[in-house]
Amino acid sequence: MALYPNLDQMNLIPEYASVPNNYGTKPLPPPAQASTNHLSLVSSSQSLYPALTEYMGFDLSDMTKKGPAIPAMNSGVVAIPAVPGQVTNGLRQLTLCKDAKGRVGLMVSAVNNGVFVCFILKNSPAALGGLRFGDQILRINDTVLAGYSTEKVHNLIRKLPVNNINFMIRDRPFERTITMQKDSVGRVGFEFNKGKITALVKDSSAARNGLVTDHHLLEVQGQNVIGMSDKEILKLINQAGSVITVTIIPSLLFEQMMKKMKADYVKAKMDHSAHV
Amino acid sequence: MALYPNLDQMNLIPEYASVPNNYGTKPLPPPAQASTNHLSLVSSSQSLYPALTEYMGFDLSDMTKKGPAIPAMNSGVVAIPAVPGQVTNGLRQLTLCKDAKGRVGLMVSAVNNGVFVCFILKNSPAALGGLRFGDQILRINDTVLAGYSTEKVHNLIRKLPVNNINFMIRDRPFERTITMQKDSVGRVGFEFNKGKITALVKDSSAARNGLVTDHHLLEVQGQNVIGMSDKEILKLINQAGSVITVTIIPSLLFEQMMKKMKADYVKAKMDHSAHV
Repeated sequence: MALYPNLDQMNLIPEYASVPNNYGTKPLPPPAQASTNHLSLVSSSQSLYPALTEYMGFDLSDMTKKGPAIPAMNSGVVAIPAVPGQVTNGLRQLTLCKDAKGRVGLMVSAVNNGVFVCFILKNSPAALGGLRFGDQILRINDTVLAGYSTEKVHNLIRKLPVNNINFMIRDRPFERTITMQKDSVGRVGFEFNKGKITALVKDSSAARNGLVTDHHLLEVQGQNVIGMSDKEILKLINQAGSVITVTIIPSLLFEQMMKKMKADYVKAKMDHSAHV
Repeated sequence: MALYPNLDQMNLIPEYASVPNNYGTKPLPPPAQASTNHLSLVSSSQSLYPALTEYMGFDLSDMTKKGPAIPAMNSGVVAIPAVPGQVTNGLRQLTLCKDAKGRVGLMVSAVNNGVFVCFILKNSPAALGGLRFGDQILRINDTVLAGYSTEKVHNLIRKLPVNNINFMIRDRPFERTITMQKDSVGRVGFEFNKGKITALVKDSSAARNGLVTDHHLLEVQGQNVIGMSDKEILKLINQAGSVITVTIIPSLLFEQMMKKMKADYVKAKMDHSAHV
């Protein structure tokens, strides 16, 4: 019995994160609603975390009434915890539309015969729907993407109709989070250069908790930092409380995923919203 | 609040997996006891999985009486699920001893300033204690290993006394599991060569679930397959039921970790026990 369902079992999980296209008439739901609704099937009907209705302070029971169905707790489906940026490797479905300019706001990179999100445009449907850097897109509508080239996926997306684009996503397979604690002078204990972790301070919290070098920082406290300057990233770390969670990826994989992206474009246009 | 505790909070978790040295006088506990007792601190006192006392059919309440203390459920400590080989990235403590020949039965590889287990000797204390390929060793007794070279760690272990060697482990940071389902003719849908995944079958369960190439197979249904022939691995896959879970690692990292290991030695001596 797997902690996460495999796709063959996913017909048990209804769609839940639908971002409507009618910008003119109705406000979009806050991005956090879509991004926190990671679901997983588990073998028990008990809940490790607060019940869905208490989740993150959102009244999700209200959401069920007016929006897509949220499965009841006794179906064995529970919410993934409210840890900043926690990587679950779980599956989720997402329904997006194109914006007024016909964009989903998404670029991908084909790595190892998988298709991975490598860019999310600020304020786009992809950003508002909670897509993240490193998410693996398994399927768009009925098309399984394994083996597709980057260009082939971009062509597929371009040709899609405006509404009801259904994505099946595996949460960031190459990433993981590490939680550390600041010392008495506010230091965690690592150095980084252009977002890449380059050194660990001896006996620091970073060293004790097993942070490693040759990895890139992707998120600080669940907030995307790709394309930010080191100074901006440091500011985020300093502003955080005493316990800090970062999301990292091996630099070898990061560089493969970003090799076709222009640094200036990423810096200016990448979605940097926080996912909590 | 993190799903897993950081090390700064780990003094809350008692040691629980102690493999005694007195081979002559008392049988060793079954390896599964040590390997399944992965613990994590969570924010809720509710249990996602069966209570510790019902866990895996072992009477752990009995273990508490005669052995190290198992924290009560209301302390917020719960057992990690009984999924074959599920990677948690969580922390655990382990107390090992040396065998009659003075060996722990363990070799490490220093990668990105972290220290990772790259070999476990059959029937050794390390194997019986549930160490796995890819486990990151954060600390041995009071020594934080970040930045240590492979040789420096091996020297440290050699010089340790026979008993009460305390390891702080982070569960396999570079690995993940994927669960797939066999089709009507028993195929999952991927090809491999010398343990490395080389191709995916179009629209197979492997493709649908996001398996990727350029990764090495480490476990099949929780059983270590490193050093096994492809024929032996295929036999394991064929013998499994319709749902199959594999543990994988990016080949680039696998090759870094194995570069100093001799293939013949690994084939003959690697622990291939199952961790369920």
